[in-house]
Amino acid sequence: MDKLKLKALYADLKPELDIVETELAQVVLSDSALLTDAALHLLQAGGKRIRPVFVLLSAKFGDFTIERIKHVAVPVELIHMASLVHDDVIDDADTRRGRPTVKAEWNNRMAMYAGDFLFSKAIASLSHIDNSYAHELLSDTMVELCLGEIEQVEDKRSYDLSVKDYLKRIRRKTALLISVSCELGALAASVPDKQRVHLRNFGYYVGMSFQIVDDILDIVSTDESLGKPAGSDLLLGNITLPVVLAREEPGVCRLIEKVRLGDTSESTRKELLQELRSSEGLAKAKRISNLYLEKAMEELKSLPKSSAKRSLQNIALFMSKRKF
Amino acid sequence: MDKLKLKALYADLKPELDIVETELAQVVLSDSALLTDAALHLLQAGGKRIRPVFVLLSAKFGDFTIERIKHVAVPVELIHMASLVHDDVIDDADTRRGRPTVKAEWNNRMAMYAGDFLFSKAIASLSHIDNSYAHELLSDTMVELCLGEIEQVEDKRSYDLSVKDYLKRIRRKTALLISVSCELGALAASVPDKQRVHLRNFGYYVGMSFQIVDDILDIVSTDESLGKPAGSDLLLGNITLPVVLAREEPGVCRLIEKVRLGDTSESTRKELLQELRSSEGLAKAKRISNLYLEKAMEELKSLPKSSAKRSLQNIALFMSKRKF
Repeated sequence: MDKLKLKALYADLKPELDIVETELAQVVLSDSALLTDAALHLLQAGGKRIRPVFVLLSAKFGDFTIERIKHVAVPVELIHMASLVHDDVIDDADTRRGRPTVKAEWNNRMAMYAGDFLFSKAIASLSHIDNSYAHELLSDTMVELCLGEIEQVEDKRSYDLSVKDYLKRIRRKTALLISVSCELGALAASVPDKQRVHLRNFGYYVGMSFQIVDDILDIVSTDESLGKPAGSDLLLGNITLPVVLAREEPGVCRLIEKVRLGDTSESTRKELLQELRSSEGLAKAKRISNLYLEKAMEELKSLPKSSAKRSLQNIALFMSKRKF
Repeated sequence: MDKLKLKALYADLKPELDIVETELAQVVLSDSALLTDAALHLLQAGGKRIRPVFVLLSAKFGDFTIERIKHVAVPVELIHMASLVHDDVIDDADTRRGRPTVKAEWNNRMAMYAGDFLFSKAIASLSHIDNSYAHELLSDTMVELCLGEIEQVEDKRSYDLSVKDYLKRIRRKTALLISVSCELGALAASVPDKQRVHLRNFGYYVGMSFQIVDDILDIVSTDESLGKPAGSDLLLGNITLPVVLAREEPGVCRLIEKVRLGDTSESTRKELLQELRSSEGLAKAKRISNLYLEKAMEELKSLPKSSAKRSLQNIALFMSKRKF
């Protein structure tokens, strides 16, 4: 399984990651049993903890003290979790006769406040770090995350989305938080400024590559490995890079037009996927994700050789080369 | 109108409040037209800006520089606004202060992201202040606000709510943010520690008194002055202090039981209001709000005489003595 393979790449971080995990579990305790349940449930759902991993590995280039570093590793993971929770709050889902069912209403309330709680706890955890630049970084990233989410809502069903707007959106939605994970790790470990900037840029390029790969996988993966029908994001009106780059190709163009007019049938989905999979646009998208990966690797070049550097390279390679 | 009378009490702060207002309008700009619209809409809906007023007046006891103080005045107002926006998602509220809510005009999702955006901008604004204690204060307050909201959901229709649980809830929901407004103002202006603690306590007691008064007004006001039917909070299952203190009285008890069993008719609402208005519980609630007001005034005693002190006294008096 992918996740296990990925975890093997940072197996030597296990003791430090365990400390981060313990801190995460501590931080989400509260005197509301309901909220503690909800938060622990989210934590136990796992996730790859890839952002804390980037924090830890970046910090390894400086003065690494886990008791200090954990206060930047925990906030980035909490913000990631909070944004996932808020993404799951769906306005119209589970309604009956135009009114939310008790269960849906309850879940939405809890999801919203649980997200707010995690956001707040992220800031609270970071306040152990006496560095206003760190707060600026994290809060700016939260702002950009929100903007990314709003753009995604606004861009829905924008079948004429430009490459530039797509890149801007994934920068906000994905790349910035990974970039900031690297930078905060470096900052908390007093990594020299020049190296810190390389680590920040590395995180940014990896994040871009990673999100493009994710969007490619939504098209080329089997339904089973995705856990949902391939192309379902597209049918919901989420326009991604492969589609942007392939939409002028006749076969794709014709089917996109059908979807745009409301045909989201099984047969149309399958036809569209087939066209996209063999499209030139998809190949172009792969090349672009590779370009970002190369840029990420380039940033690491001037950093001193170390096992942390090797891990960063391996993770970047792994995340950007998941089997298409 | 109440709001005008209140504003007259801090008329001499107008130049500084204008700077805060300009900063608020600046801070909520973003390159999402939709979000900027939503945020400006919220700002223009007004509000008393009572939290920034507490920040400014508390800062007057120290080294007052508006260019520094505004970076704590803006965050507390943004957090207040963010929590209102998120409350509207929950409450299915279509109007607030007589204007349509963001939720009604856009949708749940926009309201949620707008709230997240305002939270994030609050932290971003505070990061101009290089003081990790300030970040700790604000993030802890955000955590408590969330817990308060969750408690309010959990306590809904808990007709046996205890006085202690009621007080705990309003402490989180209202008093803490006002307390922190005072403390952050004092902190940013380097007010001596002892005075800062008095200002913090003052804010806390005023906030408690203020919320109890608000809950009393929901029962004793006319529908017109409230802008909604009096007692409607109660019919929705929000149990407040007057009800907690009056529920053993036979007339109230009988009608609460009717509501509890689902009778939310006009006639029951009116009967219940009449019983509550003449109840001993209501009189007790008034006495408790007065006790908090006295405690607030007590905290101010040792502070040096100044126009800021007089303003704090007048505002506290006004907020706690709104006509019942």
